[in-house]
Amino acid sequence: MSLAAHSVSGFATWTAQVQATVEAALADSLPSAASVPVRLHEAMRYAVLGGGKRVRPLLVFAAGALFNAPVTALAQAAAAVEMIHAYSLVHDDLPCMDDDALRRGKPTVHVQYDQATALLVGDALQSQAFAALTDAASGIAAARQLEMVRLLAYAASSCGMCGGQAIDLDSVGASLDLAALEHMHRLKTGALLHASVMLGAWCGKALQEADMKALAAYADAVGLAFQVVDDVLDATADSVTLGKTAGKDAADNKPTYVSILGLQPSLELAERLRLDAHAAVASFGAAADPLRRLADMIVQRKN
Amino acid sequence: MSLAAHSVSGFATWTAQVQATVEAALADSLPSAASVPVRLHEAMRYAVLGGGKRVRPLLVFAAGALFNAPVTALAQAAAAVEMIHAYSLVHDDLPCMDDDALRRGKPTVHVQYDQATALLVGDALQSQAFAALTDAASGIAAARQLEMVRLLAYAASSCGMCGGQAIDLDSVGASLDLAALEHMHRLKTGALLHASVMLGAWCGKALQEADMKALAAYADAVGLAFQVVDDVLDATADSVTLGKTAGKDAADNKPTYVSILGLQPSLELAERLRLDAHAAVASFGAAADPLRRLADMIVQRKN
Repeated sequence: MSLAAHSVSGFATWTAQVQATVEAALADSLPSAASVPVRLHEAMRYAVLGGGKRVRPLLVFAAGALFNAPVTALAQAAAAVEMIHAYSLVHDDLPCMDDDALRRGKPTVHVQYDQATALLVGDALQSQAFAALTDAASGIAAARQLEMVRLLAYAASSCGMCGGQAIDLDSVGASLDLAALEHMHRLKTGALLHASVMLGAWCGKALQEADMKALAAYADAVGLAFQVVDDVLDATADSVTLGKTAGKDAADNKPTYVSILGLQPSLELAERLRLDAHAAVASFGAAADPLRRLADMIVQRKN
Repeated sequence: MSLAAHSVSGFATWTAQVQATVEAALADSLPSAASVPVRLHEAMRYAVLGGGKRVRPLLVFAAGALFNAPVTALAQAAAAVEMIHAYSLVHDDLPCMDDDALRRGKPTVHVQYDQATALLVGDALQSQAFAALTDAASGIAAARQLEMVRLLAYAASSCGMCGGQAIDLDSVGASLDLAALEHMHRLKTGALLHASVMLGAWCGKALQEADMKALAAYADAVGLAFQVVDDVLDATADSVTLGKTAGKDAADNKPTYVSILGLQPSLELAERLRLDAHAAVASFGAAADPLRRLADMIVQRKN
């Protein structure tokens, strides 16, 4: 999967290949829907398979491309990150959180099944993600795999994704300044996007300090850009295009980039972050083309 | 912590020492209540610290005593298992699950805080548990630590604890036979108790096939005994003694050992399982005294 991601059609092909590879890895990592408890396993597969842009897996593979990481290892790491992401969506959609009925164009898990099942789906997906990272078939040395578990665990923790969710909860109806909004998103979305980039790179080799710094700068820029664009789309797109309920932030009285900065400055910020992401990986040359095209895709997406 | 657990006072001292050691490890593993997000971190510490019998940590230390496992490693493994257990209680108490207001003699997390916080507390505790198992300070080789992550991840998964919870949900109002009830508990409670024993042993050394089998037999017997006694206590004790709401199973129309077998046969089953547990570890000699005394404690407890 080290194809010509620098040409437009090359990138589209690369993206489709990564998505198919990750879909297969996810289908393989998740317990069969025929195994007991059947309803829980069905619901886990419903929550994870057959949908989503797979931004995090794409980041894993794009970062892995810098260091010729083997596909098997990347697919496992990507599946693990995507399971963490999927669990967070299932829990985030619950009535006691965002209370959302639509996700990836389908009824959310608690609507399709029930709240208790949705709770267990999220819980079990998190366990499954860590289990996936311990698979010996990845071909990665145990010490490196353990590092990857640690990285993902902290990214998902109360000092990462869960912490961002908690700050988000506390911020409903509050007037956050830009710095506070950015801090929330660095945890809520940024931590897992950052982990995706690092996991992909670690599938290839032990990183030098300079590589780590460059990738961290890339991940930071892309992570924020992702959220700025999310806020723009929530304010401007319709639910059918988004595959989830549009206009939620304003309805929920949540602070967003659009509510704090305005629409046009938010678009300009996203563009600036896109260029920051490109600049961060300049030293990697053509091998970083997938990372560059992903930054473009994240900023220029329509849903 | 390899003291004379075979004498009555020796066991009480050993138990108190392990509990204090694990409490310190948990306090240390959990993010400070002064760090952002403060409310989430407070709630995580509320859910975990200062309560509980610490049965799983005691099993970790008792199994570790067989192979002279170092205290630092045992404390970390015990903290990890206890965080998984604590997260499962927080989620289990939520209104969409068991809807319980009392746990360990205190208001449950969603009552003391709110449902969204309780959801995130559970989610973040699960991540923190896996993070704890990756700590290099344990002194355990990375390959073994990775095995321990895998063991705990599968024990907590939809093929373990979460799976048991799902079967439990499906069984409300249903008439389970004894085999189905046992299967549910082998997943719901048994998987994590089993993991506790194995993690403790692995802190000491790579296990031989025969040791694995003996410990698995012990864990199976103790795991089932634990649940049988839980059912007996739910039917016979009061809420103050239990520290949680008594009589819930009958009120919820849940199948239990008492409802299927009757009270006296349940007590006899628990006693038989206690003897099975003793028999399973006979070959380990005096080193298995903590495991024996724990089996006694689990069967003879009053809450």
